[in-house]
Amino acid sequence: MVRWRRYRPDDGFYELFTRSAQNLVTGAHLLAELALPGVDVQSVSERLVELEHDSDQIAHEIYNKINSTRRPPLDRADIYRLGSTLDDVMDHLEAAGTLVYLYGLTKLPALPREIHELVDALTQQAELTAAAMPRLRTMRELREYWIECNRLENEGDRAYRMLLVRLFSGEYDALTVLKMKEVADELEAACDAFEHVANIVETIAVKRA
Amino acid sequence: MVRWRRYRPDDGFYELFTRSAQNLVTGAHLLAELALPGVDVQSVSERLVELEHDSDQIAHEIYNKINSTRRPPLDRADIYRLGSTLDDVMDHLEAAGTLVYLYGLTKLPALPREIHELVDALTQQAELTAAAMPRLRTMRELREYWIECNRLENEGDRAYRMLLVRLFSGEYDALTVLKMKEVADELEAACDAFEHVANIVETIAVKRA
Amino acid sequence: MVRWRRYRPDDGFYELFTRSAQNLVTGAHLLAELALPGVDVQSVSERLVELEHDSDQIAHEIYNKINSTRRPPLDRADIYRLGSTLDDVMDHLEAAGTLVYLYGLTKLPALPREIHELVDALTQQAELTAAAMPRLRTMRELREYWIECNRLENEGDRAYRMLLVRLFSGEYDALTVLKMKEVADELEAACDAFEHVANIVETIAVKRA
Repeated sequence: MVRWRRYRPDDGFYELFTRSAQNLVTGAHLLAELALPGVDVQSVSERLVELEHDSDQIAHEIYNKINSTRRPPLDRADIYRLGSTLDDVMDHLEAAGTLVYLYGLTKLPALPREIHELVDALTQQAELTAAAMPRLRTMRELREYWIECNRLENEGDRAYRMLLVRLFSGEYDALTVLKMKEVADELEAACDAFEHVANIVETIAVKRA
Repeated sequence: MVRWRRYRPDDGFYELFTRSAQNLVTGAHLLAELALPGVDVQSVSERLVELEHDSDQIAHEIYNKINSTRRPPLDRADIYRLGSTLDDVMDHLEAAGTLVYLYGLTKLPALPREIHELVDALTQQAELTAAAMPRLRTMRELREYWIECNRLENEGDRAYRMLLVRLFSGEYDALTVLKMKEVADELEAACDAFEHVANIVETIAVKRA
Repeated sequence: MVRWRRYRPDDGFYELFTRSAQNLVTGAHLLAELALPGVDVQSVSERLVELEHDSDQIAHEIYNKINSTRRPPLDRADIYRLGSTLDDVMDHLEAAGTLVYLYGLTKLPALPREIHELVDALTQQAELTAAAMPRLRTMRELREYWIECNRLENEGDRAYRMLLVRLFSGEYDALTVLKMKEVADELEAACDAFEHVANIVETIAVKRA
């Protein structure tokens, strides 16, 4: 006798998480462009704002789907948290890029090395997250993702700390210090929010175990 | 045949949420007073502290009612989050007003225009929230509230960003910049906390849909 | 007839919470050492980093136990939140101590009095928390703990506020102000995180009531 597995549609939640995470990869790459000589910083900021709007729309599509789906594949509260935290990361990436533009920081000879280290950590976190989202469907091979994402957060944290030591060393005037610290705070918050995404995935996987 | 709807007392939760939100309206109006010429800033700060104590008491009344109510009208965890987040908003409003007083900022010729824009956004968020709380009883007409509350948060965010650009422009000395930034951070956190309240209401409504 | 109560092992969760909280007591004492004349600040910072690693490991032991335990004694989500928030406190204690070291702040004649007041509040919160964790087993005598822990958070908050007033008064140069503010922010975040722990305990107790 053939027994049929009850078909349970996922209603596109995994695709939406993946699209949201892919926007984060694009966002991190745009931030990396800011280090290039002669970059058009206003255009980078505008592209980040567009990406951020797109991520907002994906988040709202997710919230609406929670409403309209009778049996979502994950707890409604977890879907909500995952969707909104992916959106949080984008908010911080956009804020960092826009502040570099608004504060005119690319007029400096060079941004401190630690800012590039933070952007590197973010880029790796974004790529890991985008690769992990489709695996939520099967809940397989997620453990390495969240461990590595947490490790990168620690690395970002260390870069942030050393950046502040440099900023407070007297190398820059007080207002430039304040401007760069605002940018660094957004980058560090993005790093944290990626870890938060990884923790939500861990919680979801723990429930399924 | 008449069928009776099972009567389910709400035990006063909606009244408590409404009172807490009305305190936020009063708090936002007190902050707006700080812009008036010749204002007694110490008295405004003291009235904010009193309001904040009252909001604390309302929050604890809500927590006790969660304990003593057999079948609360909403999930216990949601009641807890809504009560504590309304209280968070008040903490930030009080902090902003008290810092203006403690730092002697009203001695400046004028506060930057963007601070007034932030207070305007907060006042509108407070009024929308106070009007929305009684509607939790029927879950009707809440959607516009949370959309508008999120929109105002975006507006506040933009005002905050432009305020920092102005503060870092060299118009003020470094210590004045730091003082105004602390005030602005509290106003922006209040704006965020209002959005957080709206998100909790959205989550509650989503569960009921 | 004898009726047996079903034996329900707690699988060591309470021991792990207690160990994590005891680390916080040690951490707060290390921070208090920074005020002593001739202290070896590098060694204090290194011991804080070790403690922080140990707390990380305890947190991950807790998460693994959530996975491997069939019927944990508390909601899985609550165990997770309590474990991770205890770990958050340690992150802030470690950060505060390490920043004092990295910024060379012990070279100042003395740290402002309000920083010591913050460390005092933290020490008391740590001791109360470590004493409360084993009482989760019976859920008895927890109410006083969370009330007192919240009261200490208010005290810490007031000390933090007065510290900023002093820092912005012109007594220190702008870069020293920024350094001490970073340290103060971490201490205040630790104070907040202790309150967060107390709120989680309150939520757990409310569910059991």
